[in-house]
Amino acid sequence: MPTLKEYFKNDHFAELIGAELLEIRPGYGKARLLVSQKHLNGVGTCQGGAIFTVADLAFAAAVNSHLTVTVSISATITYVRAAHEGYIYAEAVEKVDHYKLPYAEVTVTDEEGAVLAIFTATGYRKKQQLDAEI
Amino acid sequence: MPTLKEYFKNDHFAELIGAELLEIRPGYGKARLLVSQKHLNGVGTCQGGAIFTVADLAFAAAVNSHLTVTVSISATITYVRAAHEGYIYAEAVEKVDHYKLPYAEVTVTDEEGAVLAIFTATGYRKKQQLDAEI
Amino acid sequence: MPTLKEYFKNDHFAELIGAELLEIRPGYGKARLLVSQKHLNGVGTCQGGAIFTVADLAFAAAVNSHLTVTVSISATITYVRAAHEGYIYAEAVEKVDHYKLPYAEVTVTDEEGAVLAIFTATGYRKKQQLDAEI
Amino acid sequence: MPTLKEYFKNDHFAELIGAELLEIRPGYGKARLLVSQKHLNGVGTCQGGAIFTVADLAFAAAVNSHLTVTVSISATITYVRAAHEGYIYAEAVEKVDHYKLPYAEVTVTDEEGAVLAIFTATGYRKKQQLDAEI
Repeated sequence: MPTLKEYFKNDHFAELIGAELLEIRPGYGKARLLVSQKHLNGVGTCQGGAIFTVADLAFAAAVNSHLTVTVSISATITYVRAAHEGYIYAEAVEKVDHYKLPYAEVTVTDEEGAVLAIFTATGYRKKQQLDAEI
Repeated sequence: MPTLKEYFKNDHFAELIGAELLEIRPGYGKARLLVSQKHLNGVGTCQGGAIFTVADLAFAAAVNSHLTVTVSISATITYVRAAHEGYIYAEAVEKVDHYKLPYAEVTVTDEEGAVLAIFTATGYRKKQQLDAEI
Repeated sequence: MPTLKEYFKNDHFAELIGAELLEIRPGYGKARLLVSQKHLNGVGTCQGGAIFTVADLAFAAAVNSHLTVTVSISATITYVRAAHEGYIYAEAVEKVDHYKLPYAEVTVTDEEGAVLAIFTATGYRKKQQLDAEI
Repeated sequence: MPTLKEYFKNDHFAELIGAELLEIRPGYGKARLLVSQKHLNGVGTCQGGAIFTVADLAFAAAVNSHLTVTVSISATITYVRAAHEGYIYAEAVEKVDHYKLPYAEVTVTDEEGAVLAIFTATGYRKKQQLDAEI
């Protein structure tokens, strides 16, 4: 059986954009993205969808870390500062480990630790177990 | 000077994932994405970040359609149904054309018109004009 | 058995603040509040919580209109204009009548029809039926 | 000149529903509400608008604590557990002290410290100073 971290390698979209899962443990997930020209929007800053995706990857890791399949119901992202080229990090903390409707907060920062965006989301736990192990 | 629609071709991230802007007119934007295997997540459905990005492109079109540079402050996405391979469409309507803080709603649907997600966001209008024409 | 509209008279908090349900039918709810001095905040405009509450009453009506008990999971309110003394109206439209996770949008307007706030929320349908009839 | 805490006594709506500001210091606010029958909805739990209002009071305190008038642009509340009669507490932490668009998170808990709701909001700083002192 794959480890949870290997399991998340199956996220083709994360792979397409270059987002990598760095760490996953109960109630926690951390991901990063090396922002380069291909992630920029028309005004030359990192597109919101790229920031959202790396945050969502960290969120998915945190809420699926208990090995029950959990999908997103809704997510809110608030942009604090424009993101530029270089690494950005997304760190997710599951604030509510609810049996049905978990909630996590993800903080996206740049290499210096400055907050770029805050992402919060509610998940929905399904009945299936994840085919992975910690 | 480019047209607004040409202007949005500069969104490299939209290009990377394959999202296309179809239409832009005052207070309105429409985009689409051909969901294929590269947009799927670990559970085989379209990754939330891909849906978010096509919605965000339509949003950006709608709120920038008045030719004043407008960035996003925050966005909320609610997922209604899992999205699968095939075209998905994002249609943005600017519900509040505020001089400083516009607001738009984006409905994401599949080829049959079934709602996949609803995205709402608040923008922040800057002082610069966009280097484009309608 | 009470009608649905009578059923909503049991909302003590709506009564405390003076919010009234005007109309309820499948997928739709409308409420109003006569904003007076007691609803104002420290800067002399209608407090966000008062606007939220009248919107939430309209939302609850719309998502409970199918006679299945439905509670809120999360709600987002975006303020467009400051609200002053006089009637404000909240009109809720259930955009997604999902068997488990319905979604509705509420538009709050003043007496002239100017938009004051937009409220969107996701509900969670329980298994119980409401003890009321249309 | 009044202290900031006295200044918030001018929130008539908070007074109407019984929400009290307990503490305010730079980047932080804490409020509480004694939930009684008048705060309940039709299904016998604390109405969402009452929880929202006490959270919003704590938020307003945190983002106005730097003595610049700050209003709300948008807020998202996620309900975790139904709230019943007894004290509930709302604790706001300003996570982003941005000169224009601050962001704070409010955690609402019951007397035992169980999380009832999480509220996040973005403010808009005006140019006026608050007529109060720390």
